[in-house]
Amino acid sequence: MDGVKFLLDLSILLFTAKAFGLLAKRFGIPEVVGQIVAGLVFGPALLGVVQETDFLEQMAEIGVMMIMFEAGLNTNLNEMKKTGVKAAVIAFVGVLVPMALGALLYIPFYGLGDPDMLLKGLFIGTIISATSVSITVAALQELGHLNDTVGTAITGAAIIDDVIGIVALTVVISMKGGDGSDNIGMVLLKVVLFFALAIGSGLIINKLMHLLDEHFPHTRRIPIASLCYCFILGYIAETYFGIADITGAYLAGVVLCNLSDREYIEKKVDISSYMVFAPLFFTGIGLKTSFGAMGVKLLVFSVLFTIVALLSKVIGCGGSARLLGFNKSDSMKIGIGMMSRGEVALITAQKGLAAGLLSSDFFTAIILLIVVSSIVTPIFLKRAYQTSGIKAAAS
Amino acid sequence: MDGVKFLLDLSILLFTAKAFGLLAKRFGIPEVVGQIVAGLVFGPALLGVVQETDFLEQMAEIGVMMIMFEAGLNTNLNEMKKTGVKAAVIAFVGVLVPMALGALLYIPFYGLGDPDMLLKGLFIGTIISATSVSITVAALQELGHLNDTVGTAITGAAIIDDVIGIVALTVVISMKGGDGSDNIGMVLLKVVLFFALAIGSGLIINKLMHLLDEHFPHTRRIPIASLCYCFILGYIAETYFGIADITGAYLAGVVLCNLSDREYIEKKVDISSYMVFAPLFFTGIGLKTSFGAMGVKLLVFSVLFTIVALLSKVIGCGGSARLLGFNKSDSMKIGIGMMSRGEVALITAQKGLAAGLLSSDFFTAIILLIVVSSIVTPIFLKRAYQTSGIKAAAS
Repeated sequence: MDGVKFLLDLSILLFTAKAFGLLAKRFGIPEVVGQIVAGLVFGPALLGVVQETDFLEQMAEIGVMMIMFEAGLNTNLNEMKKTGVKAAVIAFVGVLVPMALGALLYIPFYGLGDPDMLLKGLFIGTIISATSVSITVAALQELGHLNDTVGTAITGAAIIDDVIGIVALTVVISMKGGDGSDNIGMVLLKVVLFFALAIGSGLIINKLMHLLDEHFPHTRRIPIASLCYCFILGYIAETYFGIADITGAYLAGVVLCNLSDREYIEKKVDISSYMVFAPLFFTGIGLKTSFGAMGVKLLVFSVLFTIVALLSKVIGCGGSARLLGFNKSDSMKIGIGMMSRGEVALITAQKGLAAGLLSSDFFTAIILLIVVSSIVTPIFLKRAYQTSGIKAAAS
Repeated sequence: MDGVKFLLDLSILLFTAKAFGLLAKRFGIPEVVGQIVAGLVFGPALLGVVQETDFLEQMAEIGVMMIMFEAGLNTNLNEMKKTGVKAAVIAFVGVLVPMALGALLYIPFYGLGDPDMLLKGLFIGTIISATSVSITVAALQELGHLNDTVGTAITGAAIIDDVIGIVALTVVISMKGGDGSDNIGMVLLKVVLFFALAIGSGLIINKLMHLLDEHFPHTRRIPIASLCYCFILGYIAETYFGIADITGAYLAGVVLCNLSDREYIEKKVDISSYMVFAPLFFTGIGLKTSFGAMGVKLLVFSVLFTIVALLSKVIGCGGSARLLGFNKSDSMKIGIGMMSRGEVALITAQKGLAAGLLSSDFFTAIILLIVVSSIVTPIFLKRAYQTSGIKAAAS
């Protein structure tokens, strides 16, 4: 029997993902970057020990759904309401500016002559539209400023721009569509219908899960039913509404985010995720990455792409914060705090790859952005707080 | 995109497995039986909502490897040494008698004229050779007799007969082989070589894991590395030694069973297992089961098969216990305590199905055996302890 080759793939990918992830962490780089590099090293790009298979792709899809489901579960509805309009405006402008600047960068480099140039440009912009909540929160926590006004605004905006980013991703991918019928009106109608269905059924599911939670707290049926809900909503989104399955997974998380057993659900899903599925998502990105086309042009583009991605958040978020009445120093902190990018950029990029909106070459640029922004954001944020502290002491 | 059908399959199977499992539990039947029935009901046998796919089969394989890995992890080496020779003899005779009686039952029913009749008969016997450790332990615990002499003998023998059963399974399946070169001498040599390799490398892995455990207790790297070891040993066993991958998984568990973080490893693997993989193994059995051929002959065979399976343990284990010096009442308790069958019978059967040693029709008989034995063992065991209690009080 050689039908168990997938066991070899699993052991290589899971082991090296953990090893490379730990190595990355030791250098202060996020663990996910190490996991991607593990896929790069052992995949076709370098050693060629592991090839992508249908099985690995399906496992990776479960992994990314679990990540988005957890992100949804972690939504703090009360905090979102409290931070309210200001965070939403910061998030919204902080999505528009990177999308516009991303398109402006892409089109002269790769777009000219391509009928899809605007769509592809907007897609490059969509990739850099969402801040990495986890990295930002971790940085603020380390600085002890997670819960002050600026910290709350950053966290709120980072959560909201994920949602806006997901909608933008859905719209851009649906617009690519192909068979003509998918015009923008139809796409928006489908988006509205899906959200109506998700919210409507979500209210019922939420009630049912609350009942389950009340009568059988801390029992396995709760995380299992939750995960099934995540899978089915993702399936319905993608199959019947042309909306990314990860959007469904994220919304399933939001629907369940006020359950008293939320932490219990998250813990069980998180363990399943980090033991098997999530590393297969991140190494899967490495397996997909090709270095073949990494010429000077791509290198220049990657560097500019990273600079544009970082600056566009400072301009979009910092600028709108200033206009909303934050002082100069706080606006700067908000702009810097929103610079970090992480999983969502990769998730978005992978969706674009599947939809034909992106060449796999660009993963190199995205990985560069994630590495640079993950290192630079905490350092700059610390400096910004130190500077304002010195000024406050001097005045 | 219709590439996400697997998300629908997952949500149906995981949800109904849990629901049917809980329903079974309410009737005092083991949860796994409910999970199998869920696969039966929603699979081709009845409703046909879910069809077997390569993906589901691979997920199921991971599930069964996790179950066996956990069984290995739960091996208590000290207890095995203490109970020692007596438990081993009881286990050994308790494997031989069911194998012989199983073959004797099978051959007149289905074997005559089949060149493989002896092998298939022995395989039917192998299926009923392993006691379900979990059900027996649960029953003894409920009665408060888990740690007395009889309880220890039963537990020890139930653990040992799993190992003997695994070896018997490997030998019988390897003998089926096919390409002529797999004669019994070669098979035994491969078995010996594999166990030598597993033990030799196991000592090194055990040392390395102890070091890891010492320096980084309770970190994710420990269960992840352990799971990778389970997968790779299973892969090596099946690919290079013709030994079932679950044997490798079980041995990987035994190698790690004395780590101080054993419970931590087991918990993480157990959560991954029950959240996704194990239910897919059990429902997968239901998906494979066909009711088409369930005529009078199979019905009669199933009933006789169940009776033979139960009696063969009473004769084999009770009889050998009596010869080893246990009194009449204690020997009876040991015989009864060993009657329960569970996951291992199904795991064995599924391996036989893959190897062409068993028709899927027989799963009906095995499911009947598991249901009946899971209900009957605790009841009879309770009665045996009550009877001996009354006699002791009267004397």
